[in-house]
Amino acid sequence: MADRFGEPLPDALFERLTIVGVGLIGSSLLRVARQRNLARTLVAVDASEAVCTRVREIGIADEVTSDARDGVRGSDLVILCTPVGVIANVARDIAQHLTANAILSDVGSVKGAVVAGIQPHLPASVHFIPAHPVAGTEYSGPDSGFSTLFVDRWCILTPPEGTDAQAIEKFQAFWSEAGSNVEIMTPSHHDLVLAITSHVPHLIAYNIVGTAADLEEVTQSEVIKFSAGGFRDFTRIAASDPTMWRDIFLNIRDAVLEMLGRFNEDLAALQRMIRWGDGQGLFDLFTRTRAIRRSIIAQGQETQAPDFGRRSAPPDQ
Amino acid sequence: MADRFGEPLPDALFERLTIVGVGLIGSSLLRVARQRNLARTLVAVDASEAVCTRVREIGIADEVTSDARDGVRGSDLVILCTPVGVIANVARDIAQHLTANAILSDVGSVKGAVVAGIQPHLPASVHFIPAHPVAGTEYSGPDSGFSTLFVDRWCILTPPEGTDAQAIEKFQAFWSEAGSNVEIMTPSHHDLVLAITSHVPHLIAYNIVGTAADLEEVTQSEVIKFSAGGFRDFTRIAASDPTMWRDIFLNIRDAVLEMLGRFNEDLAALQRMIRWGDGQGLFDLFTRTRAIRRSIIAQGQETQAPDFGRRSAPPDQ
Repeated sequence: MADRFGEPLPDALFERLTIVGVGLIGSSLLRVARQRNLARTLVAVDASEAVCTRVREIGIADEVTSDARDGVRGSDLVILCTPVGVIANVARDIAQHLTANAILSDVGSVKGAVVAGIQPHLPASVHFIPAHPVAGTEYSGPDSGFSTLFVDRWCILTPPEGTDAQAIEKFQAFWSEAGSNVEIMTPSHHDLVLAITSHVPHLIAYNIVGTAADLEEVTQSEVIKFSAGGFRDFTRIAASDPTMWRDIFLNIRDAVLEMLGRFNEDLAALQRMIRWGDGQGLFDLFTRTRAIRRSIIAQGQETQAPDFGRRSAPPDQ
Repeated sequence: MADRFGEPLPDALFERLTIVGVGLIGSSLLRVARQRNLARTLVAVDASEAVCTRVREIGIADEVTSDARDGVRGSDLVILCTPVGVIANVARDIAQHLTANAILSDVGSVKGAVVAGIQPHLPASVHFIPAHPVAGTEYSGPDSGFSTLFVDRWCILTPPEGTDAQAIEKFQAFWSEAGSNVEIMTPSHHDLVLAITSHVPHLIAYNIVGTAADLEEVTQSEVIKFSAGGFRDFTRIAASDPTMWRDIFLNIRDAVLEMLGRFNEDLAALQRMIRWGDGQGLFDLFTRTRAIRRSIIAQGQETQAPDFGRRSAPPDQ
């Protein structure tokens, strides 16, 4: 796992890093920042007093506060890790309290709506570099984070045109040191790409789990018992944080509806193949999809261990 | 993993076990039968000479032949592990060569069509007990099997009315010794249950992977890079054996179309929630689905390790 990790940096990359919202991503950033010396001082901000208390207990930050304005003061890097629905509000709230030349970023899974909600409210002296690390697990909260979450994953940056090149470079270094590959694209292209690689997959996972729960002919207990037939795979992402995902779907409507339209068209064609017994059509699709997984494994984005390496499939021959 | 495994049986449960079709399931059965002494002599039959050669090399059977009629002669247990599309043909081919009082079974993911295709052709002296072990990985072939594949998984039996009770009991013992829990139901109920827990999940996984491969606005390379956003989860079951899954969908049309209809209705409602910004509706669904995963984990059908325990999520805090 530590293949991309070298020695921690001799000098901290940033003086003072503030993380606003200490969930899975925020707490993972604090952990890797400490481990790799990415900032001299780590500040954690969370609106929930319970989360602040827990962050103090596990000791992953130097300073902890529930007051975002206080927390960002003097920081040369501020990363908003709240659910997408409140990122813009928080940004507007802290805008006038940011230090000149600070980098302001976020980790939201939606970029178009977030950028539109933040950019007009920022002082010109702040470097705004939206980001989206494509990494996560189905768990949430400050205890669920870990320092290697970003290793070998991709982080997408969507800096507005005219953003200071040195600031971008320094922020790219931050993510590289956290273990990530970095790619730059526009917010609208980001939203299309993520609609198909993340948002629609979550949507149909939530949907099928809901469908299964509502059946009358098949009991809930049967769904659970026989879930190893494939269903249980979908329950993982359908166990992700409900607030986070509600906010994503409310803020990325057009891209998701566009990709969902494609999915539905293709599903109708597939349904027709089954109804009319088109074995060749089914076989061709099922062969094509196999190749894509091979590429994902070859590019280090997936394990080749059978069954994701779940405990049920140890190689023991 | 060996929690349900005790000592191997002192006396073999069956005299002679013939496995027809040595893929993931067939080769796993041979391995566990050897390890647990479930049959004195193990016979492997496969229509492919290449598979027969490989089975001889890895030494998981006492006898290996490509001639099914030869292979089943004298066996008191015969299990057909071929793709669903050829099970009935194989059964008809061997029917008159089966020993009196032999148990004939299969492992097909479809029960209604398979039972209808086999039952009328069997001699009255044979005990026909169709089975479906709900277990597997995305890999196929004789090298992909392992002896613990069935541990803590469910095996569904669908014996026709009037089947000899002692034969059922002995065959249940076989699956219990292989590590499985056993449940008995009718073929048509089996097909409904599996349509929602296995067939429709596979169908929509194949479908979204196909949709992603066909996009123009998003490149294949982007789909692969950013697949950790959720998409890659679907590629696992969409990498399953194309022949096996073609046959399943051709043989279980009605149950799959019924469940797919429910899925589509629910997806239309979800799509509408997104279009109209119904945050409460989204939140309620996303909360409900979380609970189902918790039950699946609690009942030992899934790991609670984050991200399926993939190498990308070690706990290191």
